[in-house]
Amino acid sequence: MNLKEHIRVVPDFPQPGIRFKDITTLLNNGPVYKEVIDRLANHYRGQGIDLVAGPEARGFVIGAPLAYALGVGFVPIRKSGKLPGETIEAGYDLEYGKDKLAMHKDSIRPGQKVLIADDLLATGGTISTTINLIRQLGGDIVGAAFLIELTYLNGKDKLEGIDVLSLVQY
Amino acid sequence: MNLKEHIRVVPDFPQPGIRFKDITTLLNNGPVYKEVIDRLANHYRGQGIDLVAGPEARGFVIGAPLAYALGVGFVPIRKSGKLPGETIEAGYDLEYGKDKLAMHKDSIRPGQKVLIADDLLATGGTISTTINLIRQLGGDIVGAAFLIELTYLNGKDKLEGIDVLSLVQY
Repeated sequence: MNLKEHIRVVPDFPQPGIRFKDITTLLNNGPVYKEVIDRLANHYRGQGIDLVAGPEARGFVIGAPLAYALGVGFVPIRKSGKLPGETIEAGYDLEYGKDKLAMHKDSIRPGQKVLIADDLLATGGTISTTINLIRQLGGDIVGAAFLIELTYLNGKDKLEGIDVLSLVQY
Repeated sequence: MNLKEHIRVVPDFPQPGIRFKDITTLLNNGPVYKEVIDRLANHYRGQGIDLVAGPEARGFVIGAPLAYALGVGFVPIRKSGKLPGETIEAGYDLEYGKDKLAMHKDSIRPGQKVLIADDLLATGGTISTTINLIRQLGGDIVGAAFLIELTYLNGKDKLEGIDVLSLVQY
């Protein structure tokens, strides 16, 4: 199955010069979506993962079913102000813009094995912030899983020491 | 399994007087999260559902794994400006505040059977807007599934003619 065929490239979104990788066309196709989650789950099964963590909102559509497939909990990493409990926060630069991410302080216990999941690895800004937050909570990061990797943005360089898996590369 | 035990109630979030139902404590527990998705999937399996649709962002943590469990596609319903393709949009009132939801025009084909999923049914504002958008695209709504229903807000009244399932009631 060629996953790339199911991803739509939208030019000049959200701003001129960006070729946005639209995964909604892939999500729309049940067997293709299932294949994505199964490939990721098969890769990580048996590694003793305790939790999958994913940043909102597109990270949820990969991370949540991946957690379900692995039978483990899911930790939503959210924009500032969305989580009701006590949080830790960190700011970061996006491929386009700036933002702040938050996690509940009680979402990870020290020593728990955490897999990070997101739809896309671009410059790595979101994910390096996620790594920073998870480590502050004492989580042991097993790897970072992506549907798509934009290899020309060298995001992997920001995730040194983290095992990165991506299913589709541009 | 008593699901309610795993939901944390946070007083005065996001504003005074709201007793926020925090599902992150439930999501964090792998077997409990799996039970939620399995109960929903078992209820709808065999009904010929083509797609699960869920509003961002908490709707994704219920809807996406439910789509995966049913082997069907997932349609993310997003805040205005987030989807890169051609969209239809509609505004609505929240339990607290106002917002606008969008769907890709090509996300549902006329006659497709669509299950709506979200974490929580409150006043029904988000979901009645979702119903409106799905019907504009010609989707046939099979039902609306929620982890939580705040029965005292009578959200069901806004969803007339839609079969509503919720696993936990307050």
